[in-house]
Amino acid sequence: MNKELDEVKEQLEKHFDDAADLSAADLAEHLKVLKKHDEDEYASYLDKLDSASLGEVAIEMPDHMLKDVIENVSNDKIVEAIEELESDDATDLLQYIEEIDEEKAKELFCSLELDSQKEISKLINYEESEAGAYMQTELFSARLDEKLSSAITRFRVMKKNGDIENVFQLFVVDKDGILHYAVPIEDLLVFDFNQNLQTIVKNSEDDKYKPHSALDTDDISDVATMVRDYDLSAVAVVNKAGVLLGRITTDDIHDFLEDSATEQIYHLAGVDDEAEDEDTLFKAGRARALWLFVNLITAIISASIIGLFDETIEAYVALAILMPIVASMGGNTGTQALTVTVRRLALGDIEFSNAKSVLGREVSIALINGVIFASIMGVIAYIWFGVSMLGLVIAISMVINLFCAGLFGTLIPLGLKKFNIDPAVGSSVLLTTVTDVVGFFSFLGLAKWILL
Amino acid sequence: MNKELDEVKEQLEKHFDDAADLSAADLAEHLKVLKKHDEDEYASYLDKLDSASLGEVAIEMPDHMLKDVIENVSNDKIVEAIEELESDDATDLLQYIEEIDEEKAKELFCSLELDSQKEISKLINYEESEAGAYMQTELFSARLDEKLSSAITRFRVMKKNGDIENVFQLFVVDKDGILHYAVPIEDLLVFDFNQNLQTIVKNSEDDKYKPHSALDTDDISDVATMVRDYDLSAVAVVNKAGVLLGRITTDDIHDFLEDSATEQIYHLAGVDDEAEDEDTLFKAGRARALWLFVNLITAIISASIIGLFDETIEAYVALAILMPIVASMGGNTGTQALTVTVRRLALGDIEFSNAKSVLGREVSIALINGVIFASIMGVIAYIWFGVSMLGLVIAISMVINLFCAGLFGTLIPLGLKKFNIDPAVGSSVLLTTVTDVVGFFSFLGLAKWILL
Repeated sequence: MNKELDEVKEQLEKHFDDAADLSAADLAEHLKVLKKHDEDEYASYLDKLDSASLGEVAIEMPDHMLKDVIENVSNDKIVEAIEELESDDATDLLQYIEEIDEEKAKELFCSLELDSQKEISKLINYEESEAGAYMQTELFSARLDEKLSSAITRFRVMKKNGDIENVFQLFVVDKDGILHYAVPIEDLLVFDFNQNLQTIVKNSEDDKYKPHSALDTDDISDVATMVRDYDLSAVAVVNKAGVLLGRITTDDIHDFLEDSATEQIYHLAGVDDEAEDEDTLFKAGRARALWLFVNLITAIISASIIGLFDETIEAYVALAILMPIVASMGGNTGTQALTVTVRRLALGDIEFSNAKSVLGREVSIALINGVIFASIMGVIAYIWFGVSMLGLVIAISMVINLFCAGLFGTLIPLGLKKFNIDPAVGSSVLLTTVTDVVGFFSFLGLAKWILL
Repeated sequence: MNKELDEVKEQLEKHFDDAADLSAADLAEHLKVLKKHDEDEYASYLDKLDSASLGEVAIEMPDHMLKDVIENVSNDKIVEAIEELESDDATDLLQYIEEIDEEKAKELFCSLELDSQKEISKLINYEESEAGAYMQTELFSARLDEKLSSAITRFRVMKKNGDIENVFQLFVVDKDGILHYAVPIEDLLVFDFNQNLQTIVKNSEDDKYKPHSALDTDDISDVATMVRDYDLSAVAVVNKAGVLLGRITTDDIHDFLEDSATEQIYHLAGVDDEAEDEDTLFKAGRARALWLFVNLITAIISASIIGLFDETIEAYVALAILMPIVASMGGNTGTQALTVTVRRLALGDIEFSNAKSVLGREVSIALINGVIFASIMGVIAYIWFGVSMLGLVIAISMVINLFCAGLFGTLIPLGLKKFNIDPAVGSSVLLTTVTDVVGFFSFLGLAKWILL
């Protein structure tokens, strides 16, 4: 344990002595470790953060640490930190603070510069899944009739004031603010600065500077797909009228991708990604308990299916030994189909137009594997218990169960998606209920019918 | 089905009439649908692809379509297509072709320009997981003592020849090729073109242009973490001596992130991501069968545990009804801990220095939930079968099993990682073996001891 603390202390010291350059994420992580072991030193490091890093680090902090910031750092410094952030990050941070202390968030908001207030008020209204929530309003744009040199002069001032960073494109708009072109910065380097942008663009290849843009209300996952498919470094965000509002940069897309992959993985396992983030045992445990509770109910349902056949089991105890195998193989086969379907839906590989062929593929794989493993297990059961009919019973029930596993493993996520429910949430529990019920019922039912 | 075909045909027509701009990924996807329904039209569209798009689309194709390209498109055109690609993509495509037809790949390679041959020979030697395999050698660099204007003149020529795209930085090297600085292109716009780079950098803030770089032999997942933590748009790749070799752009990091998330999700479910990509029923089915086979063996092991207690079950058939509940709750609890550990390992949230606290957290959550659900289920079992001792038996065995679930759900991925094995592969099967065996053994063992 102390090894961890020592390492963290050493790295923090280096960072504040300018001998190393820790990322905001690492700083937040290190401070968390420090807080656990040495509250005083933790407080002194919080103090040492300058306003430029304070904002970046605060975004990465779990709630309990952000609370420390709100309570211990002066309002002036927090306001400064918010001003230093890009508008999308500033909005996020203010929202995080609001969740902890509404009053404080209002106070901070009112102390911001008027421009920042305006921008944040606009951004804060977007839904979490909308492109607008991911955009920053800081961008480099120029009018069609403007000379490139004048745009660059303006850009020089913005850079000097630290108003803008990570610029990949010059957005060219008309007098109504409607976006016409997006010109990569690298291309600007080779142009004649004395020409106006209209002329420059006209002299280039057709469509070369046609912008890739998203509506502010578009779903962010569609924007991420566009970024991937066209290898973009930034996307312009426009409103319905085509007016340029902001831009989304790849670092935001990057974060979205990682978060949504984590969400899918966690949801498939009945874990809440947001509760896990919180880092408190209680919240994470409660969220997981919820799914365990659902699982308990479905497990009792499956068990009561077994209860229907208690006399059959009393007569043939081998059935009790073999029945978990039928259920387990069904569960695994179904999970394979389910996982592939959930992930391919998320990646945009499956649309409803090709849903039928996806279903056909999954059911075929499940059925073929069903026949193979049913045969193997049939022989094993026969050898194990010396009853040939028992082998037949387990074989038939496995074919039935693995077929249903493939069918429902595909249909459940497709169905949830159709009703606009996240296809990863709860689908595993639903699926294993199906495979357990079908497995137990077909195996014990066939046994009762054939063996007794 | 025809709706899908019609839609695809319409979109392809639009694309080739220049009325729409499909991405390479979409083109490959559409051609795949077309191939299924109309081989002739498919062949004619393959023909229509110009050499610039042919390469981009070919990278996105499954093997069977790439085979069509090799067999039907002239060598000259394929060579042209490879030349049009960036060096990393060209290397990938040539490797894909090699996997299908080694002779053909050699022929194509020998027809490439000497420069391309050299670059590809260098890149092809990197392991799949090394940063070098993701880098492109096309980059914009300048010497410390060079005037900015001369670098830009060179850049203008490169752009004109189409040698370089998506440039975010000028890399500044010394006479030995050792990387010293990385200057964002946007900053170049505001500099005095007549100064040399050494002077320009010296006049800036300390460390402002210190490059973020990776070794060519670094693991690509570490590079992705760096890109995320520092919000980078590109990373320089250097060798051990610090000599600049190439650069990795965010689109490659983007692809890596999506692929590795898919890999984790699939591996957790016993699905092979590469076999699924192939789109052939046979390969995907075979890969899944492998994991089902492993699962069959472990299920038989668990079943044989039940077999140890056949007399107990004959005496108390309620045990056969309840035992799947103990196993199921253990499996679910374990999967929660397992999934969180696998994902947090992948995201770099867990290091070996904090492994102990992670283990403590997971075991605590599992144990608390274990006590809660054991109590609930104990009461239910008592009410269901009217035997108070049966309630006690299932409660104790659930506490034991859920504790082991949390313990092994965390230890299995940590252990696999320690031995440099992908912690997602096979860990689910291992875990459910543990939870089944512990669940059945503790429940039936306690029952035999307490109830009989």
